[in-house]
Amino acid sequence: MTDLQILGQQAKTAASQMALLNTKTKNQLLEKMAETLELHTEDILQANQLDLNQAKENEISEVLQNRLQLTEKKIKEMTNGIRLVAHEKDPIGQIDKTWENEDGLIISQKRVPLGVIGVIYESRPNVTTDVATLCFKAGNAVILRGGKESFHSNQLLVSLLQETLENNYLSPFIIQFVDDTSRKSADELMQLTEYLDVLIPRGGNNLIQHVKEHAKVPVIETGTGNNHVYIDKAAQINMAADILVNAKVQNPSVCNACETLLIHKEVAAFFLPVLEERLQTAGVALHADERAMDYLTTAIPATQEDWSTEYLDYILAVKVVDSLEDAISHINRYNTKHSETIVTDNYFAAQKFLNEVDAAAVYVNASTRFTDGFVFGFGAEVGISTQKLHARGPMGLLALTSTKYVICGNGQIRE
Amino acid sequence: MTDLQILGQQAKTAASQMALLNTKTKNQLLEKMAETLELHTEDILQANQLDLNQAKENEISEVLQNRLQLTEKKIKEMTNGIRLVAHEKDPIGQIDKTWENEDGLIISQKRVPLGVIGVIYESRPNVTTDVATLCFKAGNAVILRGGKESFHSNQLLVSLLQETLENNYLSPFIIQFVDDTSRKSADELMQLTEYLDVLIPRGGNNLIQHVKEHAKVPVIETGTGNNHVYIDKAAQINMAADILVNAKVQNPSVCNACETLLIHKEVAAFFLPVLEERLQTAGVALHADERAMDYLTTAIPATQEDWSTEYLDYILAVKVVDSLEDAISHINRYNTKHSETIVTDNYFAAQKFLNEVDAAAVYVNASTRFTDGFVFGFGAEVGISTQKLHARGPMGLLALTSTKYVICGNGQIRE
Repeated sequence: MTDLQILGQQAKTAASQMALLNTKTKNQLLEKMAETLELHTEDILQANQLDLNQAKENEISEVLQNRLQLTEKKIKEMTNGIRLVAHEKDPIGQIDKTWENEDGLIISQKRVPLGVIGVIYESRPNVTTDVATLCFKAGNAVILRGGKESFHSNQLLVSLLQETLENNYLSPFIIQFVDDTSRKSADELMQLTEYLDVLIPRGGNNLIQHVKEHAKVPVIETGTGNNHVYIDKAAQINMAADILVNAKVQNPSVCNACETLLIHKEVAAFFLPVLEERLQTAGVALHADERAMDYLTTAIPATQEDWSTEYLDYILAVKVVDSLEDAISHINRYNTKHSETIVTDNYFAAQKFLNEVDAAAVYVNASTRFTDGFVFGFGAEVGISTQKLHARGPMGLLALTSTKYVICGNGQIRE
Repeated sequence: MTDLQILGQQAKTAASQMALLNTKTKNQLLEKMAETLELHTEDILQANQLDLNQAKENEISEVLQNRLQLTEKKIKEMTNGIRLVAHEKDPIGQIDKTWENEDGLIISQKRVPLGVIGVIYESRPNVTTDVATLCFKAGNAVILRGGKESFHSNQLLVSLLQETLENNYLSPFIIQFVDDTSRKSADELMQLTEYLDVLIPRGGNNLIQHVKEHAKVPVIETGTGNNHVYIDKAAQINMAADILVNAKVQNPSVCNACETLLIHKEVAAFFLPVLEERLQTAGVALHADERAMDYLTTAIPATQEDWSTEYLDYILAVKVVDSLEDAISHINRYNTKHSETIVTDNYFAAQKFLNEVDAAAVYVNASTRFTDGFVFGFGAEVGISTQKLHARGPMGLLALTSTKYVICGNGQIRE
């Protein structure tokens, strides 16, 4: 057996133990995990320093170094996050519906854990504790395969969580870590059909595409967002500018940021100079199509590639469209089915956009930045699903569960 | 582009049209589809005769020939089935929940179609109309790839459905048929990531395993059922015998039939001879483990393979277990997560079995044969899911949908 198969087998056994824990026990364990991490703040910072040294050696960008770096404050945020998960409602055991059928069978649809969840993720070490504790609360065993940049931090965090499990007479295999950051280990995890119930990749588009191409286990795609703000001819200029600027610059590096502005031809001449000034102030570079170029002074010409690009940066593609229909058809062609918004005063335009745009979240007169587990009221999220099966949009605890039908009879047989 | 890619592209365009049809229009179309098939009863029987001639030439078993054969009565059942789908509640447009969040955004989770569904299936021609009309009612475009045995019947049925669509000014590409029954066409369909939102294989274990191994599109596994009846030491002998015999012989060729009997050692000596007599009368052959052999006169020894075999035939594997725990652990090791039942008078045994057995449907004191869309009140089913993602158990119309978040704001931006 390979190392991954051993991890898989251990996880499967641990998952049966995990599925039977009651909510109180799980919440107490989460509190203890938070305490353990706080007690070992110094150790975590030291392990993180090894990652930071390595990052400097490899001349990794400062932005990435910042994402990688842990501080006392960030560790406190991490443990507060764990306590929030403890306070969230436990979906396991919840009865979604129950009824008596014609045969007199009492049928209940009950929430149960998925079983064993694999997660492949990149850089930030806080993903380790976020994901591990969400999977734990939803009654699952998890196998974590983090990126090489945060290897030492991740490894220590997982070993502290495992220590807490063992000190409380539970299997440490409930939360496991793949001690190998080669592509081979990731590829092997994707093939672990005998043990994994689902694989969730969290990271950039390359990772997601690679997983889609190579995984044999069921996958939930997350996180790439090529999102659009469409400014309709019936839009108010101030609202349009506020929403566009917020969607673009409030945090350009996240998946619910806006990447392309579509603007109706009838308002382009009046709106674009105003928008350009606001975006300039915020430091945004513009890549514009031919018609938009006429109204912009700082833009460079967009290429075909711009329409499909998730910049995650202070860059915005701009395109003038002839109609609402053209906007919708451009979006449905190029978007990644994440978050899309229309700015309009027109009732019918709003309805048409909401109905016909294909995305996890469609907005009228609000920033795309709201697509988020906390904002939606689901609590911490394990990712934002951009596929249509199982879960769509922000995935909280409920997305980490399945159901089973529990049927109570008194001797019924089928005629 | 390959033929399959062209089909995919056509389906994707048709899916956008399909998604916007209202319930009334869809129901009217379904009624017209039923009428068209009835008008062409003679043509359908003729096309079916070509399949039957071919089946005889290829010396296909009589059981399979019976499944393949259409009659006037079977065509009437088919069209009645379509009318039942028309009468079912349309899930599309349904709002699962709606709330106002802290920012004053009105967020609704709305049911939308999945988009393009691929279905790979075997032999029976009525699957063609069942699946096509369920996908249609749930607002999806569908690409059907049936088996070679029923090629002529399937092809004509689809062309009649398409004719109805075209006569009503709709795209015929809403329901498409793969005109090639080679393995190559099935394999290509499994790779159609750009166009398919989900692939549902309907057929035997070989088909399902092949799809799991080779598909790159998301798959919903259906239909293999290696199901168990566990007779506890606290079971009533008559109820146990009734349930076991019903689960085994009421229809042995279906996925919710029982394949293995597990019996507690304390009642084996008394129960097994009685059960053997009942099963003998029904024509069931027994493959028993060493301990069960002691109490049976007609059984042959079971091999390791018997525990994993879905016979779909008048054969039953029999094993004596030491305890409820052993029964649960045997089931969780060998079952296909479909339907499992315990016969017991003991409250705690029932609860433990329901909680710890991992399956789509777990029963106390009832036959496994009840796992069925109509029995559960979901109407016609597209299959019975044995996986944990998206849908588990009988899949009715709801399983053929996704959701999207529709968010109405009045200028909100994220702080």
